[in-house]
Amino acid sequence: MSRIDGRTAEELRPVTIERGWSKHAEGSVLISFGDTRVLCTASLTEGVPRWRKGSGEGWVTAEYAMLPRSTNTRGDRESVRGKIGGRTHEISRLIGRSLRAVVDFKALGENTIVLDCDVLQADGGTRTAAITGAYVALADAVAWAQECKLIKPKAQPLTGSVAAVSVGIVDGAPVLDLRYEEDVRAETDMNVVCTGDGRFVEVQGTAEGVPFARQELEGLLDLAVAGCAQLDGAQRTALGR
Amino acid sequence: MSRIDGRTAEELRPVTIERGWSKHAEGSVLISFGDTRVLCTASLTEGVPRWRKGSGEGWVTAEYAMLPRSTNTRGDRESVRGKIGGRTHEISRLIGRSLRAVVDFKALGENTIVLDCDVLQADGGTRTAAITGAYVALADAVAWAQECKLIKPKAQPLTGSVAAVSVGIVDGAPVLDLRYEEDVRAETDMNVVCTGDGRFVEVQGTAEGVPFARQELEGLLDLAVAGCAQLDGAQRTALGR
Amino acid sequence: MSRIDGRTAEELRPVTIERGWSKHAEGSVLISFGDTRVLCTASLTEGVPRWRKGSGEGWVTAEYAMLPRSTNTRGDRESVRGKIGGRTHEISRLIGRSLRAVVDFKALGENTIVLDCDVLQADGGTRTAAITGAYVALADAVAWAQECKLIKPKAQPLTGSVAAVSVGIVDGAPVLDLRYEEDVRAETDMNVVCTGDGRFVEVQGTAEGVPFARQELEGLLDLAVAGCAQLDGAQRTALGR
Amino acid sequence: MSRIDGRTAEELRPVTIERGWSKHAEGSVLISFGDTRVLCTASLTEGVPRWRKGSGEGWVTAEYAMLPRSTNTRGDRESVRGKIGGRTHEISRLIGRSLRAVVDFKALGENTIVLDCDVLQADGGTRTAAITGAYVALADAVAWAQECKLIKPKAQPLTGSVAAVSVGIVDGAPVLDLRYEEDVRAETDMNVVCTGDGRFVEVQGTAEGVPFARQELEGLLDLAVAGCAQLDGAQRTALGR
Amino acid sequence: MSRIDGRTAEELRPVTIERGWSKHAEGSVLISFGDTRVLCTASLTEGVPRWRKGSGEGWVTAEYAMLPRSTNTRGDRESVRGKIGGRTHEISRLIGRSLRAVVDFKALGENTIVLDCDVLQADGGTRTAAITGAYVALADAVAWAQECKLIKPKAQPLTGSVAAVSVGIVDGAPVLDLRYEEDVRAETDMNVVCTGDGRFVEVQGTAEGVPFARQELEGLLDLAVAGCAQLDGAQRTALGR
Amino acid sequence: MSRIDGRTAEELRPVTIERGWSKHAEGSVLISFGDTRVLCTASLTEGVPRWRKGSGEGWVTAEYAMLPRSTNTRGDRESVRGKIGGRTHEISRLIGRSLRAVVDFKALGENTIVLDCDVLQADGGTRTAAITGAYVALADAVAWAQECKLIKPKAQPLTGSVAAVSVGIVDGAPVLDLRYEEDVRAETDMNVVCTGDGRFVEVQGTAEGVPFARQELEGLLDLAVAGCAQLDGAQRTALGR
Repeated sequence: MSRIDGRTAEELRPVTIERGWSKHAEGSVLISFGDTRVLCTASLTEGVPRWRKGSGEGWVTAEYAMLPRSTNTRGDRESVRGKIGGRTHEISRLIGRSLRAVVDFKALGENTIVLDCDVLQADGGTRTAAITGAYVALADAVAWAQECKLIKPKAQPLTGSVAAVSVGIVDGAPVLDLRYEEDVRAETDMNVVCTGDGRFVEVQGTAEGVPFARQELEGLLDLAVAGCAQLDGAQRTALGR
Repeated sequence: MSRIDGRTAEELRPVTIERGWSKHAEGSVLISFGDTRVLCTASLTEGVPRWRKGSGEGWVTAEYAMLPRSTNTRGDRESVRGKIGGRTHEISRLIGRSLRAVVDFKALGENTIVLDCDVLQADGGTRTAAITGAYVALADAVAWAQECKLIKPKAQPLTGSVAAVSVGIVDGAPVLDLRYEEDVRAETDMNVVCTGDGRFVEVQGTAEGVPFARQELEGLLDLAVAGCAQLDGAQRTALGR
Repeated sequence: MSRIDGRTAEELRPVTIERGWSKHAEGSVLISFGDTRVLCTASLTEGVPRWRKGSGEGWVTAEYAMLPRSTNTRGDRESVRGKIGGRTHEISRLIGRSLRAVVDFKALGENTIVLDCDVLQADGGTRTAAITGAYVALADAVAWAQECKLIKPKAQPLTGSVAAVSVGIVDGAPVLDLRYEEDVRAETDMNVVCTGDGRFVEVQGTAEGVPFARQELEGLLDLAVAGCAQLDGAQRTALGR
Repeated sequence: MSRIDGRTAEELRPVTIERGWSKHAEGSVLISFGDTRVLCTASLTEGVPRWRKGSGEGWVTAEYAMLPRSTNTRGDRESVRGKIGGRTHEISRLIGRSLRAVVDFKALGENTIVLDCDVLQADGGTRTAAITGAYVALADAVAWAQECKLIKPKAQPLTGSVAAVSVGIVDGAPVLDLRYEEDVRAETDMNVVCTGDGRFVEVQGTAEGVPFARQELEGLLDLAVAGCAQLDGAQRTALGR
Repeated sequence: MSRIDGRTAEELRPVTIERGWSKHAEGSVLISFGDTRVLCTASLTEGVPRWRKGSGEGWVTAEYAMLPRSTNTRGDRESVRGKIGGRTHEISRLIGRSLRAVVDFKALGENTIVLDCDVLQADGGTRTAAITGAYVALADAVAWAQECKLIKPKAQPLTGSVAAVSVGIVDGAPVLDLRYEEDVRAETDMNVVCTGDGRFVEVQGTAEGVPFARQELEGLLDLAVAGCAQLDGAQRTALGR
Repeated sequence: MSRIDGRTAEELRPVTIERGWSKHAEGSVLISFGDTRVLCTASLTEGVPRWRKGSGEGWVTAEYAMLPRSTNTRGDRESVRGKIGGRTHEISRLIGRSLRAVVDFKALGENTIVLDCDVLQADGGTRTAAITGAYVALADAVAWAQECKLIKPKAQPLTGSVAAVSVGIVDGAPVLDLRYEEDVRAETDMNVVCTGDGRFVEVQGTAEGVPFARQELEGLLDLAVAGCAQLDGAQRTALGR
């Protein structure tokens, strides 16, 4: 079964991670998964939301959005419509949860990091690219804070790393890292977020049309774990580790 | 490891499904999973949204909401705040997707069914109760439409059934159908939607704090599949099948 | 002149008041006036809105809403539309004013009680059922607060009771407690809120089409006062007084 | 019992009705009840809202608003807050209902008249001044439409006239047409809308603090009916009848 | 080239400035430029917005709005639409900036003045009439504050005066103070805000269709400066200087 | 007087115009004025807004927005706040007007082009960079439409070109193309939009603090015209003319 771009089932699209893209943000990354391009910035400010004040613990949250013409046909701006759609909400929440899974809030201290993931061009996998890029931006923001002494020198606010990838069943076969055309045709669509040591942070599988069997689920998980391991490598390379 | 209400790890809370709760709706169910009570109504109208007109296919969608004092402390009404929160959006979308997985839109014809799932009392598992109850309301609405000849007599708009349950790792052990107190303490939280024949429609697992290993995931899936099978039985009993 | 359900002009529909419907709320009542069913919860919290702080006085307010399929045809959710309609606003304000008429805010102390009145099924008279039920929920919340010592033991935050009923001129004749079909046909529609000792808290009469004469108004007021007295009895019975 | 401005209990404030205030509107009136000044415009357009198309009947609706500094302390603009408050909604609906009570929609034909009542300066009784002034603007718009042949020459779209006045119990005594200072101190507050022939269109009485007895209600109605009759005279004079 | 109302190219419409129009506001003016009528109120309150607290400096801001039927065809209320349009935002910001240009915030002390400019009738030039009238209302509010000792007796919060006028190229010729019919036909439209001593505060020129040459710009600026000088005279007269 | 980055008063920052940045949009440009980077996409769709249907004429409009961390401190997303701020509205309108000034709508036919200008990084002059880049994206979209035969082959929808630049008085001297630090310190700030043949489309000058004299205005206009001519050259180079 050959894929539209000639990849094998277990092959990622070319991944690039460009650090330091923004001169203002404490951490910033332009990540691409093939033609999908997401600008991830990490903004660190002292202080925490009201409900967390005095706890000694920090906070990490995320906001995801798509530029109106990041897609094939232009979408309305959510700011113009005056409300955020369900999909945007859902992905913002997913990114925030995924990153919080590797943060030690005590070590972060009462600082807040907001991860903005803005999709400049979309071709499938925007949420997984966003998580993978946001982790690198987060790491840079934490390193910056340590240099500035906003975080104690020996504190380790990051307890691990996270990366994410999509998998799906297309034309009956499980494939890794779906492009938009594949995503549209997928019978089952799954997004998996893994830590660098191969454990799961999020597993979200959805039958698009045909319910899927346990065995298919297992095959998708195998692909996803291997894909995340490759992305973990790309993150390490980008961070010079 | 005993649970707060004395249940075993693989035991559901008492489930009740009361059909025909509303005199207006084409299908209506008051479902309870223990103290969680959700009123599910199915409203069938002729016609479909603009983007589907002329396709000959129907549409099914869902809206989930919580009454302000369905929870332990009162929450603001989303209508008063003027916008719907991310969690509400996410669950409404989940319910809609789950039910659409067992609908044959051609057989439904150009009719729209809206499933309203309003949580009257919450004690964990509101989304899984909502899906499980909404299926029964949907089945009743479809039966009503067949009696009224809105749907062709031999059409089979429902290709199967769906039920949903939560599972999680609490104090290191996997348990089924979490109450609120368990949900708060869970290290991993998973919602699983299955068809009546045991395949998956949705699998959503989230690490709350500690990432989870493949083996833990497998254990949770086992519990969930067994739980959904029991719920399938409760649905059949309620529907008199 | 016989009514659609065989009642006499001065007869209420069957009234049921089920206390303690919710396990979370400080007071809760499921009230029915025939097929109209409203869930009324009273949520008591310490503290008052900003503009009342330091006054030593409490506050009571109300929010009314209809579930989307509580009516014969499904209505849009106000949370989805992003704004509250005029009718909802008007009824919420009416319920709040009606209950405040029998509250001694000094005796309540700096506590706030919010009455949520959610219409589960509508068949005319939802606002009057809401007021009548909310009073019982309020009484339960006040009793709860006295047990918890949130209110001083000898304080009497309730100076009386309130109940409400609709009256109208249908086919030229004044009738009590209109069902939806009667309400639609009524030439004049009036909602009356009375205290347990027979005085008026609110009188809202509206000509629907034909203006009404003083004598007709007097006839409607007579009916309403008698109806409220019966509802006062139902409230006392429910409260075990 | 003397009133703050020396009036007797049954005396209106000076009333002025200035027609033709706007060069654009089909009917326009600047009405004053003492220091309360409301600009009422009637905008007539051909056609009706979607739900009324093809009925052969017209529609009349109203919108009420206060300029931010029409009151003693500046209020936020509802356009800036992004939503309309409950009081505004309630009064807009009241004005619309009051005027529709004297309109024959068949005679109006498929035309829509919107009455905008903008309070330029407030000193109590803004809603009653708005109704009284809006009737005159409506009459002018109807006359204009007849001249333009938008309405059939012999059609009588107005079946009568309406005027409105406030009454209340202040310091234990019923008084007519309350100024703001009286309104604030009133134990009972009532707004009454009457037709020119002395029948009721709306009766809205509210206990502010102390519930009121039947006899008090009767006294207030007597005052209101007499006050509306005087306003009817002022409307006739303004219209040159 | 004669103008529709017979004015010469460099002639203003009749200007009237009526001070003290509102009994509540600290400063209030009803200004007319021909048939354009704008009610300008200045509301002074002690204190400043949060971001300015403790600075010892005051703040001046403005809000502009049009009544729905101030124009030839009725426009929707922005409060009903739930958002403020771009034009309204733009003009509100322009008025605020224009007046702040002549305010010494240190001398004003920590007081806030809000200028509400509500267009009662529109016939072109509403923003320039608003600025010109708002200055007079501002001057009155400052004088009131000095009388009340809210501002130090020798403080001079106003460092100058401002007035504004529109100019444009109509049928190839530059003209002053455009009426609505001229504005619609103008090839170039410019609004100019000048201080009483003839310097510029704002210059906003827009080509409507045909770009304009430097020489045309110079001609428009000449007209505008002369027009503002006349308006400055009208302001002085109104203020009795 | 030397500038912070060593430029002379009449010198632009380095300008880069990268065409074809997006694979989806009909025209797309990443433009930079020094550190200011704006992504401009032109989306062409057949058809026009309702109010223009059947006119045979097209439409061009623009939307401007800043990514939350395009600035030095993170700003709230307008989609999350639920409304668009006045500045965003104002700039979107300015961009739309500027481009419409060089469009022949008859030649465009009933097609709509939306220009999205999203600021990826801000350092002063975002609106002028947006206009300058949007023109190139617009030219590419028009060329694309001609290739696709959506526009008649000999039609010339663009009657000229536009570019924009900021000028201001900093430390008493007029300078071209202000960076953020200069913009903040400027006494007068002006944005000028010129056509390729040196005429004006928009002139917007604002005194920030000190009103400016006619002579200063002239000096600023001279600088701006020269700056726009240079930008016109950069546009031509980018377009390969």
